[in-house]
Amino acid sequence: MNDIVVGIDAGASKTRAFAVDRAGTVVGRGAGGGGNLLTSPDPQGAIAAALAEALGGRGADAVVLSCAGGDRETERARGEEILTRLAPPGAKLLVTHDAIAALYAGNPTGCGVVLIAGTGSIAYGRNEEGEEDRAGGWGYLIGDEGSAVWCGLEALRAISHAVDGRGAPTRMTALLFQQLGVGEFSDVLPHLYGRPHPAPAIGAATRALASASAEGDAIANAILQRGSNALARAATVVALTLGLSAGPVYLAGGAFENLSLLQRLVQLDLLGLLPQATVEPVREEPAMGAARLASALAWSAE
Amino acid sequence: MNDIVVGIDAGASKTRAFAVDRAGTVVGRGAGGGGNLLTSPDPQGAIAAALAEALGGRGADAVVLSCAGGDRETERARGEEILTRLAPPGAKLLVTHDAIAALYAGNPTGCGVVLIAGTGSIAYGRNEEGEEDRAGGWGYLIGDEGSAVWCGLEALRAISHAVDGRGAPTRMTALLFQQLGVGEFSDVLPHLYGRPHPAPAIGAATRALASASAEGDAIANAILQRGSNALARAATVVALTLGLSAGPVYLAGGAFENLSLLQRLVQLDLLGLLPQATVEPVREEPAMGAARLASALAWSAE
Repeated sequence: MNDIVVGIDAGASKTRAFAVDRAGTVVGRGAGGGGNLLTSPDPQGAIAAALAEALGGRGADAVVLSCAGGDRETERARGEEILTRLAPPGAKLLVTHDAIAALYAGNPTGCGVVLIAGTGSIAYGRNEEGEEDRAGGWGYLIGDEGSAVWCGLEALRAISHAVDGRGAPTRMTALLFQQLGVGEFSDVLPHLYGRPHPAPAIGAATRALASASAEGDAIANAILQRGSNALARAATVVALTLGLSAGPVYLAGGAFENLSLLQRLVQLDLLGLLPQATVEPVREEPAMGAARLASALAWSAE
Repeated sequence: MNDIVVGIDAGASKTRAFAVDRAGTVVGRGAGGGGNLLTSPDPQGAIAAALAEALGGRGADAVVLSCAGGDRETERARGEEILTRLAPPGAKLLVTHDAIAALYAGNPTGCGVVLIAGTGSIAYGRNEEGEEDRAGGWGYLIGDEGSAVWCGLEALRAISHAVDGRGAPTRMTALLFQQLGVGEFSDVLPHLYGRPHPAPAIGAATRALASASAEGDAIANAILQRGSNALARAATVVALTLGLSAGPVYLAGGAFENLSLLQRLVQLDLLGLLPQATVEPVREEPAMGAARLASALAWSAE
């Protein structure tokens, strides 16, 4: 036994790894580049860097990799192949979905509902009987309501309507043009199409939305209200399905940090739909959730 | 003088060319593959094939190329380069937007509003003073409301909501799974992401929507109603801006043919918003509109 386990969270923009001991104390931290198994250029390199740095040459009793798509067979097989190649000999291995790691980051018992709004969005829950449910998380083309990318796409839609005279004027138009250094809406299109996801125009539009919302722009705030409604609804469906209407509901992801009104609205919407629930932010990083899963994998049967 | 001109319509899936004489009679027809200047693999080859077949070795006084993006500098320059290389010596050349050709296909004078719902959607108009206006047509990520691709994406959204328990059940779910040969919604994702636009899942979802609508599915019909509202609104804004509220409004594009309820709803919505307008389908192909523009280019100054 090494009395150490590692949790790795492989995200689109960065990979984080935490090594923890039996007391749950972090004894090593590591970081790497983008580790999304489908879209990052070198997920194995990113995961290898984060894992090696966290371990610092030590062995491990278990390694858990959390990643987007970790519940789909293709991505899980890819992740298991990578873990098998990289993990210390003898370590138990597991590949899982990043929403599960986020839930364990919110609650060491892995029970409750986690509502994630980052680049994408998803609601995921697990009750004491171990039953699981999810809503949302179907990607930027048809889902991810309330996420940073969804907010940016909705902002671009609203701006196109304002430009056409189909919708009300919004401060977002000028803020977006300024961000991208363009003079008219058709010049935005090359920043949006024919680009890898998420395109520069989407990030710029999300920032324009955040600024316009801070200035009180009604169209920007209406988008955040719709995003909040969709997020709260997804979490509520999961909570009701699992008998978790008294909560807790954990909030995670960068969209809540960067769009402060979104977090306030989601809390209000959730308390309206689930009056008995408690709502709180996830305070630990997802890699800590993965490390807690690794602890259970290594030592819970002892 | 050759007393012949050619109009070419270069679309995403096929390219058509019409050669017409001074009386407006079609004296040659040609066809080629996809000729979209940004997304087709060999637009020059497709345009060359259609043009050569239509001319059959004759010269021409003018050649007009109509294509998506023909109002943007980059695409127009690309189109002009291709036309210069291919057209008979001495012919006057013009590259224009496909919505303009559709309007001329509806009305030889090129006046009125044309509302196009094909793969994408746009409203475009031109009045007797030559003033022009447009609304919509901003592409599948943020616009193209009421188009075939928009309908497919909305169908996929509605299905994802039904699957999650966030929305009402719809016949579209079973019809989509059947089309794609899958058993659950997560198996749809590989048919949607990481694919060239438009992905197979989108076409399958549009067909599922058409079938479900024919069976009276309320969710499918609600999507068509929202698409119709958006299309009618776009055409109305253009008509009011140009002082064309008495019409005519011409309808063009495959979405109206494949989604029969959409065309009926758009007619109703348009007559609600523009009670004095006349609404009629464009009866000629867009390549005929381009040929009419070529006739004006070659002979109107005589």
